Amino acid sequence: MPDILISEVGLRDGLQSIDRVMTLAAKCAWIDAEVAAGVTEIEVGSFVPAKLLPQLADTAAVVAHARRHPGLTVAVLVPNAKGAEAAIAAGAHKLTLPLSASETHSLKNLRRTHAQVLDEVRAVAAMVQAQPAGARPHFEGSVSTAFGCTLEGVVTESKVVELAEALMAAGVDEVGLSDTTGYANPAQVRALVRAVHAAIGADRLTGLHLHNTRGLGLANVMAGLDVGITTFDASLGGLGGCPFAPGASGNIVTEDLVFMLEAMGLTTGIDLEKLLQVRHILAEALPGEPLYGFTPDAGLPLGFVQAA
Amino acid sequence: MPDILISEVGLRDGLQSIDRVMTLAAKCAWIDAEVAAGVTEIEVGSFVPAKLLPQLADTAAVVAHARRHPGLTVAVLVPNAKGAEAAIAAGAHKLTLPLSASETHSLKNLRRTHAQVLDEVRAVAAMVQAQPAGARPHFEGSVSTAFGCTLEGVVTESKVVELAEALMAAGVDEVGLSDTTGYANPAQVRALVRAVHAAIGADRLTGLHLHNTRGLGLANVMAGLDVGITTFDASLGGLGGCPFAPGASGNIVTEDLVFMLEAMGLTTGIDLEKLLQVRHILAEALPGEPLYGFTPDAGLPLGFVQAA
Repeated sequence: MPDILISEVGLRDGLQSIDRVMTLAAKCAWIDAEVAAGVTEIEVGSFVPAKLLPQLADTAAVVAHARRHPGLTVAVLVPNAKGAEAAIAAGAHKLTLPLSASETHSLKNLRRTHAQVLDEVRAVAAMVQAQPAGARPHFEGSVSTAFGCTLEGVVTESKVVELAEALMAAGVDEVGLSDTTGYANPAQVRALVRAVHAAIGADRLTGLHLHNTRGLGLANVMAGLDVGITTFDASLGGLGGCPFAPGASGNIVTEDLVFMLEAMGLTTGIDLEKLLQVRHILAEALPGEPLYGFTPDAGLPLGFVQAA
Repeated sequence: MPDILISEVGLRDGLQSIDRVMTLAAKCAWIDAEVAAGVTEIEVGSFVPAKLLPQLADTAAVVAHARRHPGLTVAVLVPNAKGAEAAIAAGAHKLTLPLSASETHSLKNLRRTHAQVLDEVRAVAAMVQAQPAGARPHFEGSVSTAFGCTLEGVVTESKVVELAEALMAAGVDEVGLSDTTGYANPAQVRALVRAVHAAIGADRLTGLHLHNTRGLGLANVMAGLDVGITTFDASLGGLGGCPFAPGASGNIVTEDLVFMLEAMGLTTGIDLEKLLQVRHILAEALPGEPLYGFTPDAGLPLGFVQAA
């Protein structure tokens, strides 16, 4: 088992942020190439109405393709019970339902209050539990805007803890924290993770979704590592951010994250040279779309050897 | 006293990396504006032959201007005793002499072996000691390519420790470590700082010069903070890198560094809003020159308040 699990979210968080629609064939090629590089979890899309996000309208077909890879966790985002129903029907292994700590953002993003989102969580949890044991997907509740909101500003630690507890009570298997707006700083990451761990148990919060909006993405990863986080979301080429949070942009770049961890001697199971090659698929499928990342530009250090 | 000292190196490491020559007036305006924003240490140039770095040929005049600011530490880089003589004559408060851990890089950068550089260090130390007490500059020996070299590859911890000890023995007041090539990772930063601290004392290594070549700059700052580092070099707009290390580019962006530290509640004494305004001076003086930084693009978070 690698030390750290990298969850590629470019196909969801990246593609939903750009106007162009990537072809199904390109999405499948992207998944295949990342799996070949050693990636074991990919969030391949979102079950939202096609009129809201036409970029992700083919998510069921993407899930079907991705499921052909043995060992790959095929994750999807679901905004509500209806989306979860479609995700389960498609055969997704992991469902993530976002609950925005900022109720203003929740209304704008999911058009629901906290109470309404928690109702959906309960409905999804019941649906998940009703699945036969071997086909039961993993269900994560993700507290988005957990580190601050572009609409409300400061989000308090107590609010996030309260919502994490509410998610657990509503039946999720696990809680994630998401820096939707790129407001997080390392001190806050440490403090908030510790507070949530104290409330729901360290084994119930193992993953962070961090953005690089203000350049602090990898510094925040360091803070997450300090407090026992073992799963990090990242996006190939840094595609994406959150289109519903004005001013926010920039996922953590998968290539830079893998480079940092491997250079530190933390295994990810991902072959960095192969991962860097996957960028060509994006460049070809989305000509002119800016791809980010420092390591791809600078290249690997002379004499660099990946952790075993 | 602020918690962390930010040493602005854009006027030296930034300007030496670009072809155009910034006017003396613009350099002075840059210094004045950073001082007004609360910056208390600026490396204003380098005493190297004008034919090698015409961009820094007016360093003596820049030092003379910078010295008018009470409370500002006016730092300069000196490659050798001849440069130090000029720096002392100009009235610099702090001299930094680089000793490259990679001898190949040392020969290319300073055209000297380790032994030859250490001879220069001894000559400079004698010169510094000969100054009257009130006018004696602080003398730092900086181990460059301390985290790896684009020409030699891996640089061993024992080599850096050996050179840090040699610098202390040759009479420097303090040793710095420089990631000239952007090869450092956070685990390495922690380990190397600890090793050098063990060898020469924690009070003799308080500063790091980190690059952002592979996007790990701020993550490496986090690692430095973990092991007691209190001074970080950074460059406004991320100008610069090392022109003698092929493939290396990208200083830590002062604006992003100050944002991270202040967001964490660590004081820098720098007014972030004012600092962000200083970019306009660069943009005007170097039209078309790329300026970097995530925080300047994204803006400060809604409701952001600086540490007191």
